[in-house]
Amino acid sequence: MLKGKIEICSRISPNKIFEDEATNKGILDLIYTPGVAFVANEIYRNRELVYEYTSKWNNVAIICDGTRVLGLGNIGPEAALTVMEGKSILFKILGNINAYPLCISTHSKEEIINFVKLIEPNFGAINIEDIESPKVLEIVEILQKEMSIPIFHDDQHGTAAITLAALINSLKIVNKKIENSKVIIAGAGSAGYGIFKVLHKAGCEEIIVIDKKGAIYKDREDFYNYTLHNNENNAISNGKNGYTNSFKIEIASKTNLKGVSGDLENVIQDADIFIGTTGKGKILNDKMIKSMNYDPIIFALSNPDPEILPENALAAGAKIIATGRSDFPNQINNAVVFPSIFRALLDLRIKNIDEDILIAVAQSIANLVDSKHLKEDYIIPKINDPRILPIVTKSIKEYIVNL
Amino acid sequence: MLKGKIEICSRISPNKIFEDEATNKGILDLIYTPGVAFVANEIYRNRELVYEYTSKWNNVAIICDGTRVLGLGNIGPEAALTVMEGKSILFKILGNINAYPLCISTHSKEEIINFVKLIEPNFGAINIEDIESPKVLEIVEILQKEMSIPIFHDDQHGTAAITLAALINSLKIVNKKIENSKVIIAGAGSAGYGIFKVLHKAGCEEIIVIDKKGAIYKDREDFYNYTLHNNENNAISNGKNGYTNSFKIEIASKTNLKGVSGDLENVIQDADIFIGTTGKGKILNDKMIKSMNYDPIIFALSNPDPEILPENALAAGAKIIATGRSDFPNQINNAVVFPSIFRALLDLRIKNIDEDILIAVAQSIANLVDSKHLKEDYIIPKINDPRILPIVTKSIKEYIVNL
Repeated sequence: MLKGKIEICSRISPNKIFEDEATNKGILDLIYTPGVAFVANEIYRNRELVYEYTSKWNNVAIICDGTRVLGLGNIGPEAALTVMEGKSILFKILGNINAYPLCISTHSKEEIINFVKLIEPNFGAINIEDIESPKVLEIVEILQKEMSIPIFHDDQHGTAAITLAALINSLKIVNKKIENSKVIIAGAGSAGYGIFKVLHKAGCEEIIVIDKKGAIYKDREDFYNYTLHNNENNAISNGKNGYTNSFKIEIASKTNLKGVSGDLENVIQDADIFIGTTGKGKILNDKMIKSMNYDPIIFALSNPDPEILPENALAAGAKIIATGRSDFPNQINNAVVFPSIFRALLDLRIKNIDEDILIAVAQSIANLVDSKHLKEDYIIPKINDPRILPIVTKSIKEYIVNL
Repeated sequence: MLKGKIEICSRISPNKIFEDEATNKGILDLIYTPGVAFVANEIYRNRELVYEYTSKWNNVAIICDGTRVLGLGNIGPEAALTVMEGKSILFKILGNINAYPLCISTHSKEEIINFVKLIEPNFGAINIEDIESPKVLEIVEILQKEMSIPIFHDDQHGTAAITLAALINSLKIVNKKIENSKVIIAGAGSAGYGIFKVLHKAGCEEIIVIDKKGAIYKDREDFYNYTLHNNENNAISNGKNGYTNSFKIEIASKTNLKGVSGDLENVIQDADIFIGTTGKGKILNDKMIKSMNYDPIIFALSNPDPEILPENALAAGAKIIATGRSDFPNQINNAVVFPSIFRALLDLRIKNIDEDILIAVAQSIANLVDSKHLKEDYIIPKINDPRILPIVTKSIKEYIVNL
């Protein structure tokens, strides 16, 4: 039994700390009392030096309340810890980052916000992970405004970037343009919202997002009495009760402008692309895929159970099928991008994560698959492709320079 | 520039995760999605399994608000981080424990308590460190009652255990008994309170604790209107204002029963032992030491500046001088004991830390210095003595078994 996937290590070898057996004159008195008092006082006088004298510059906190772990739902912070330890390994191996899992025992939006604010001294960036929506979208919005280190929301930002990368390359294979493609996004939680934002910004004009009540559009009954700007508090409490929320209102204002209503079976007709972020397995069937436009692209991203299994999607006529899992080809998983995005956020001390950065990242990832290698079952690089880290950090650096 | 003393490491080698270049069929799908979902669900069904499937069993959080860092005072959480990274190294090298520094940006007792409660899912034990007194003593009391993992307060519990160990051996050298010795404890903060509790429990009958206002005794003016049991809230707010607090009332009820008043110069006359925990350097002088009983024992424990420097203490006639620093002989530093105490707390899943456990630890540490080696400048083992870990864990195990 491994009993844990990560550990804290000293960056100084024990031999150096207690160098000489007889005198014990190692550097213990430098790293600990009395020597450490000097560095501590330096930081007290100039707080910025915490980036020089501690590991803050390379520390990320992975914050999770256990309410929306993978597609498993509200399984609690203890259960979430196994997933976050896995994340932490990927942070380290793929981005050389110290990622501290902090799975906390509260569901309260306010308590989560306060918690994250309290740990700012220790961390160079925050990763928000597997917290239920729309609560998490509100948390991210507020923390981004009120904290001075970057707040990255992997399920929203990371998933959106890697999805766009995969879509750019899929469209090359089927020889279609994003501007003319009809996209169905199933699920209006963190991933669905993030993907909508990025695809919209990338020029996709015909998006329909669908939630439990069917296609989202601005005249849908449950949006009727809802005013985005005048009544934000009410919006939030509505969101909690499972009704609509300000993020869905934003979706409704920018997608499905024709006001198509109905369930997945209705809206998927003639679509070019299906993107599943529902958290539910097996909701997409044969008949639905057959009703899509020619060369359908299926991204069934829910974990661990995708909206449709690859073999079934292909049998139904899908041209391209991708999932979030590492045991199938075409893994569209935020793990492909988050380690390198965080590397750039930390190295460049970038505070704001916007759609344009995510588009730049997606483009750079897509470019890694050249026309010679691009094919239906290889649309994005594998998670451990060593070219990802340099190309993503370069793309973010160039984006920042050109701002 | 080292830029940080600790890092997070993967316990699984990258080669195993991405084993085969061609297929990438490593264990990524076990440690991450989809495989991790199985273990996550197991923990969801039986929360106790978090001790088997994650590193919780070996994780300690080092909690500090930066208000009382070493003897430097309120220098803030960022400055405290350098000290806590040093602590974390000692946790690892000496106890093989993962210690996560969490230096938080609040001074509020309530916020600190809530914060620590929120992280319980991740950790097997909590170490409270360098928080101002008496706030911290209240925090520890409350957390010990309300949480189900052990709350260890290094400045209180760790310092008391190692001080008693040093005292046991010092008394052998001067051939005195603890029951008949007069002890002055200067400073009534965390360390002073912790040492008082343990010495009292160990049979020391003549203790005088001294704070900024002089010797503590129950008829002292500022204790006059104070009722320990009837008015705890008032006690706490008094404590915050620099007046007395319930912990000093407890001290007054058990020490200095003769009601000796006055400052250090007054009370130190005829004392056998001086223990300094004031956080202030150079408050003990020649004349004071000369006024003590024969063979005076001086523990000047404040860091980085001890109450008197060793050479000055010896010149004034001290028989034994010890400090908290690693660059002088006789380092009475909680770092000698906390890694092994935590090892035992974690391995034995012990919840309560009481004076009897600390006395058992002190006795076992003292025994490591045999009569052949015991001398004025070697009263306790060095911090990296490899015999400490097994003897301390054994002593705690025996204590628990014999309860």
